[in-house]
Amino acid sequence: MKVAIIMGSDSDWGVMKSAVDVLKNFSVEAEVTVASAHRTPQKLHDFVKNSGAQIFIAAAGMAAHLAGVVASLTTKPVIGVPINSEPFKGLDSLLSTVQMPGGVPVATMAVNGAKNAALFAVEILALQDETLAKKLISYREQLAAEIEVKDQKIQREVSS
Amino acid sequence: MKVAIIMGSDSDWGVMKSAVDVLKNFSVEAEVTVASAHRTPQKLHDFVKNSGAQIFIAAAGMAAHLAGVVASLTTKPVIGVPINSEPFKGLDSLLSTVQMPGGVPVATMAVNGAKNAALFAVEILALQDETLAKKLISYREQLAAEIEVKDQKIQREVSS
Amino acid sequence: MKVAIIMGSDSDWGVMKSAVDVLKNFSVEAEVTVASAHRTPQKLHDFVKNSGAQIFIAAAGMAAHLAGVVASLTTKPVIGVPINSEPFKGLDSLLSTVQMPGGVPVATMAVNGAKNAALFAVEILALQDETLAKKLISYREQLAAEIEVKDQKIQREVSS
Amino acid sequence: MKVAIIMGSDSDWGVMKSAVDVLKNFSVEAEVTVASAHRTPQKLHDFVKNSGAQIFIAAAGMAAHLAGVVASLTTKPVIGVPINSEPFKGLDSLLSTVQMPGGVPVATMAVNGAKNAALFAVEILALQDETLAKKLISYREQLAAEIEVKDQKIQREVSS
Amino acid sequence: MKVAIIMGSDSDWGVMKSAVDVLKNFSVEAEVTVASAHRTPQKLHDFVKNSGAQIFIAAAGMAAHLAGVVASLTTKPVIGVPINSEPFKGLDSLLSTVQMPGGVPVATMAVNGAKNAALFAVEILALQDETLAKKLISYREQLAAEIEVKDQKIQREVSS
Amino acid sequence: MKVAIIMGSDSDWGVMKSAVDVLKNFSVEAEVTVASAHRTPQKLHDFVKNSGAQIFIAAAGMAAHLAGVVASLTTKPVIGVPINSEPFKGLDSLLSTVQMPGGVPVATMAVNGAKNAALFAVEILALQDETLAKKLISYREQLAAEIEVKDQKIQREVSS
Amino acid sequence: MKVAIIMGSDSDWGVMKSAVDVLKNFSVEAEVTVASAHRTPQKLHDFVKNSGAQIFIAAAGMAAHLAGVVASLTTKPVIGVPINSEPFKGLDSLLSTVQMPGGVPVATMAVNGAKNAALFAVEILALQDETLAKKLISYREQLAAEIEVKDQKIQREVSS
Amino acid sequence: MKVAIIMGSDSDWGVMKSAVDVLKNFSVEAEVTVASAHRTPQKLHDFVKNSGAQIFIAAAGMAAHLAGVVASLTTKPVIGVPINSEPFKGLDSLLSTVQMPGGVPVATMAVNGAKNAALFAVEILALQDETLAKKLISYREQLAAEIEVKDQKIQREVSS
Repeated sequence: MKVAIIMGSDSDWGVMKSAVDVLKNFSVEAEVTVASAHRTPQKLHDFVKNSGAQIFIAAAGMAAHLAGVVASLTTKPVIGVPINSEPFKGLDSLLSTVQMPGGVPVATMAVNGAKNAALFAVEILALQDETLAKKLISYREQLAAEIEVKDQKIQREVSS
Repeated sequence: MKVAIIMGSDSDWGVMKSAVDVLKNFSVEAEVTVASAHRTPQKLHDFVKNSGAQIFIAAAGMAAHLAGVVASLTTKPVIGVPINSEPFKGLDSLLSTVQMPGGVPVATMAVNGAKNAALFAVEILALQDETLAKKLISYREQLAAEIEVKDQKIQREVSS
Repeated sequence: MKVAIIMGSDSDWGVMKSAVDVLKNFSVEAEVTVASAHRTPQKLHDFVKNSGAQIFIAAAGMAAHLAGVVASLTTKPVIGVPINSEPFKGLDSLLSTVQMPGGVPVATMAVNGAKNAALFAVEILALQDETLAKKLISYREQLAAEIEVKDQKIQREVSS
Repeated sequence: MKVAIIMGSDSDWGVMKSAVDVLKNFSVEAEVTVASAHRTPQKLHDFVKNSGAQIFIAAAGMAAHLAGVVASLTTKPVIGVPINSEPFKGLDSLLSTVQMPGGVPVATMAVNGAKNAALFAVEILALQDETLAKKLISYREQLAAEIEVKDQKIQREVSS
Repeated sequence: MKVAIIMGSDSDWGVMKSAVDVLKNFSVEAEVTVASAHRTPQKLHDFVKNSGAQIFIAAAGMAAHLAGVVASLTTKPVIGVPINSEPFKGLDSLLSTVQMPGGVPVATMAVNGAKNAALFAVEILALQDETLAKKLISYREQLAAEIEVKDQKIQREVSS
Repeated sequence: MKVAIIMGSDSDWGVMKSAVDVLKNFSVEAEVTVASAHRTPQKLHDFVKNSGAQIFIAAAGMAAHLAGVVASLTTKPVIGVPINSEPFKGLDSLLSTVQMPGGVPVATMAVNGAKNAALFAVEILALQDETLAKKLISYREQLAAEIEVKDQKIQREVSS
Repeated sequence: MKVAIIMGSDSDWGVMKSAVDVLKNFSVEAEVTVASAHRTPQKLHDFVKNSGAQIFIAAAGMAAHLAGVVASLTTKPVIGVPINSEPFKGLDSLLSTVQMPGGVPVATMAVNGAKNAALFAVEILALQDETLAKKLISYREQLAAEIEVKDQKIQREVSS
Repeated sequence: MKVAIIMGSDSDWGVMKSAVDVLKNFSVEAEVTVASAHRTPQKLHDFVKNSGAQIFIAAAGMAAHLAGVVASLTTKPVIGVPINSEPFKGLDSLLSTVQMPGGVPVATMAVNGAKNAALFAVEILALQDETLAKKLISYREQLAAEIEVKDQKIQREVSS
C-alpha cells in the first residue's frame, strides 16, 4: 500500500508535511514529489504513469490544475488539496480543484486540508485492511479525548 | 460491495439519480435513502450505524451539513455532493461540505457532481476489484471516443 | 434561567469569552462546553439532551455545522455565532450557520458576534423577567452615553 | 402573545406570507405591516414604539436596513429575514442584516427564511408556554414523518 | 457652505480625518459628529434634522446603515463611505451602503474613500461657487504634476 | 440646469430610460448620448468637454470604465450607474465604477440604480433651486403615501 | 498564419463560433478542435505538439484547465476564454484560467469573450502583417460608426 | 522591438519591476512610464499615441481602467496586469481589467502577474524572432530544472 503526494510547488511543503506525518502515523508508505502541471508536464505524466501508488494526493494553489491533470492520467482515486495562496486565499485553488467536469472526479478537501487528505486516503485503504480500520476508530476516540481535556480546561477557567 | 446514497431532501433526487445510474452501469449495489441531518437526525444516525455500505455518498443543499454529520458517525469514506440551491447557487452548499475541520474528512465533488461521486466510489472499490478497474479504463476510453465524434461533427460544421 | 454556550473548538474561546462576560453582567447563568459536531457527536448529543438551558449559543468556524446540529436536537432557541476562520474569513462559517432549511431555525449573529449572541439571549429571557428588561434599556442608554463621550473627544480634536 | 411582521416593501409579501401561516398554525397572533426604513422612517418609528408585540420579524432586500433600524428602536428580540433580490441574490440583504455591530443584535435567518423566522419566534414564546412547546415537538415529528413518506417513495422508484 | 461628516463609530476617525483635511484645503466648513444608526438613533435623527449642512457625508462599517438612515431623514445630497471592517474587508459595508432602493439615493464612494467623498462634496458646492471650481481644476493639475515627478523618478531607476 | 446621461451601450437604454423620466418629472433638462469609453473614446472626450451639463450620469456594464473616464475629463459631479450584465450580475460593473482611486470621485448608485441617479442629480440641483427642493420633499411624501396604500391592501389580505 | 481554437466540450461551440467568424472576417485561417484536458489528455497533447498554429485559443468552463494545459505544452501565445457555466456563472472558469503561476502565461479574456479572443489573435498577427493592421483600424472605425447610429436612434426616441 | 509598461501609480512599481527584469533577460527593450487613466488622461493619451512600442503592458489596482483605456487608443496588443490592492485583494482590479466588452480586447494576467505579462509579450515577439523563440524554450527547460532541484531537496527531507 502506497500513497503518492504530488505538490505543484515546493512552497506547498509547509502545508503538505502534515499529510506525510499522518500517513507515517498509520504506517502507510508515502511517496512525495514536486511536479507542476504547467512547468513540468512531462515529469508529471511520467510520475503518474509509473508510480505504483494506489491513491494520489495532489496539492496546488492559484489556478490549481494539478489534481485534475493527475486525474486525467489515471483511474486510481485522486484527492485534491487546494492551497491557500495570495491574493484570493484559496478560493481560486478550491474552485479549480473541485469543479471538475463529469467523468473525471477529484475528491477535494478543505483549503490547506493536507491532514484530512491523508486521513481520507487511510479510510480508503482501511476498506482492505482491518488493522487500519481499527486504528482509524482509535484515532477518532483520541480526537474526542483531546477535546474533553480542552473542555475541562475551559470549564475551570469559566468557573474560576 | 455496496454504496449508500443519502439525500437531505427528496428534491435532490433529480440530481442524484445519475449517481445511481453510474453505480448500476458498473454493477455496484446502491442503497438510497432520504435522511436529513436537521429534520431526521435519529434516522440518519441509525442508517449510518446500521448500513453495511463500504462508502457513503451524501448530497445536500444550502447549509449542507449532511456529509459532515455522516462523516462524524463513521470512519468509512464519505463523499459529499453540494447541491445547487437557491439563491446562492451552491456556494453555501460547497463551502458547508468541503471546509471540514482536521480529523473528519469529506471528499467533496463539484456542485451537483452526482455522476463523479459515483465514479469516485467505483474508483475506490476498483482498488479491490480487478474487473471494476478494467471497466473504469473502458469508461475513460468511451469518454474520449464520444468527444472524438463531437469533434468531427464540429469540424464538418466549420469546414462547410 | 440558564444559557448554554457550546464551542466547536477551544480555539473559539478567545472570541466567545465576551458572551460569558455579557451574561455575567446581566446575572444570567452561563454553562460553557467544548463539543464538536464532527469530532464528539455523542458528547454533543448528550449535552444538548441533558442540559437544562433555556437557550443554546453555538459557535463554530469553517464548515460550521455545530449550531445546525444543536438545533436538530432541541426545539429551544438556538443562536449561531459564525467564527472568523482562515482562509475564508468566516464566509464559510456564516453561510454554513445561517442557510438552514425550513423547519429547523438557527438565529445567526455577525461573524464573531459573541457579544450580540449573549445580548440576544438576554432579550429573549427579558420577555419573562422585568428586571432584565430594565437592565437592557439601561445598557442601551450606556451605549449611547459612551458614543457621546467619544463624539466630544473627536469634536475637540477637529476644532483644535 | 403577539409577533409583529414588518416588510420593507409589499413585494416581500409573497415570501413573508409563509411566516404568517406558521404563526396561525401555532395560534400565535400576527401583526403585519409594510414600513420602509428609508421611505417611511417616521411610520416605522411609530409602529415599533407603539406595537404591543413581544417579538419583531423584519424582512427586506438589497441594502436591508430594516431589521437593524427596528433593533435600534427596541430591546425586544428582532428577527431579520434577508429577501432574495436582484441582482445579488440576497447576498447584499444577508450581509446588511446579519453584520450588526456589537450592542444591537439582529437574529438573522436564511435568505427568504420567512418560515424559520416564524418558527424561531414560536420557539421563543414556547419558553413561557408549555402548550406551544409541545406543539413544536409535534411539528418536528411531523417533519420527520413527511421525510419518511418521501423516502419510501424514492425507495420504490429506485427498486422498480 | 457647510458639509456634515457623520461617523458610525469613533474608530472610523482614522479614515475620515482625510475628508476633513480636504474640506479645510478647499476652505469649506466641516461639521463632524459621531452618531450611530443603531446605538444612538435619536441623536442621529436630531443631528440631521437640525444641521445646517448642505451635504452629508456618512461613514460606517459592517452592516453600514448610517448613510441610508441619514438619507431617509433629508433630501439633501448624502454621500456614503463604506469603511473597511473585519472580517469581510468592507464588502458588507459597500453593499449595505450602495444597494439603496429606488427613491432614496446614497452616493457611494470606494471602501475607505474618505478623500473622494470630500472632493465630491466640493464638486457639488463648486456648481454654485466659481472660486471652488477653479481650485478643483488646480487640484487636478497638481495631481498630474505629482505623477509626473514620480514618473521621472522611476524612469531614472529603470535607466540606471 | 442640464444633466447629461451617457450610456456605454444602447442596450443600457432599457434601464436608463427611468432616469430620463425622473428628470422630466422634475422639469430638469436631460441630454442623452451613447458613447463608449472603449469603442468611441474620442466621441466621449468631445462630448464631455463640450457639454454644458452641470452633472454627468454615466451608465455601463461589465468592466465599466465609463464613469471613471468621464470623471477624468471634468471636475463637475459624475454619478455612476453600474449596469446588471451577464454573467456576473453587475458585481464587475459595481466594483469597476465605485473603487475609484483618490483624487477623481465617482458617486456610485446601486446596480441598475438609474432612478436614484436622477434623483441624486436633482438633490444636487435643488441646493440652488428652492422649487426643486420643495418638489423633492413632495416626492418623498408621495413615496410614503404609496407605501401606506400598499400596507392597507396587505392588512386587508391578512385579516380576511 | 493560422490560429487554433480548442474547446473543452462541444457545448462551448455556441459561444466559440463567433471567434471563428471574426477570424474569417479578417481572412485568418482557423483550425478548430474539441479536446478535453481531462477526458482526452493524449489527443490534446498530440494536437498542440503537431499543430502548425502560431496562436492557440482555448475555451473551457468550470475547473477550466484547458488553456493552462495547452500553455504547458507550447511557448506559442495561448489565449484563454473562460466559459459561462452553471452554477458559478464562469467565476470558476475565470479564476481557473487567469490565475496561472509565474512562468507559464495564459492571456485571459472576459467570460464568454470568444470574439475578443479572436480579435486579440488578429492584433498579434497584425504585428507582422500590415494589411491586417489596417483592417483592425477599419474595424474600430466601424465599431464607432455603429454606436453613432444607435446614439442617433436613442436621441430621436428621447426627443420624441 | 519594444514593449511599453504603463503603471497607474508609482506604488505598482514594486510588482512591475519583475516585468522589466524579464524583458531585460530576453534582451527586449522596455519603455516604462507612470500614467493614470484618471489623473493624467492627456499624458496617457499622448504616450500611447506616440510610443513606438509593439506591445503595451498596463498595470493598475482597484477600479483598474488603465488597460482598457490603453486598448481604446491602439490596435496593438494590450496586456493587463491587475494589481493586488486593498481591501478587495485585486478582485476589483481583475474584474475591471478582464471583463472588457466585445471589440476592444485586453489580455489579462493573474493578479500581480507582472512576470507572466512580460513572458507573454516575449511569446508574441518570438513569432517574428527565432532567437527569442529558442530562448523561451530554454527558459521553460530551466523552470523544469529548478523544480527538479527543489523536488530532490524535499525527497531528502522526507526520507531523512
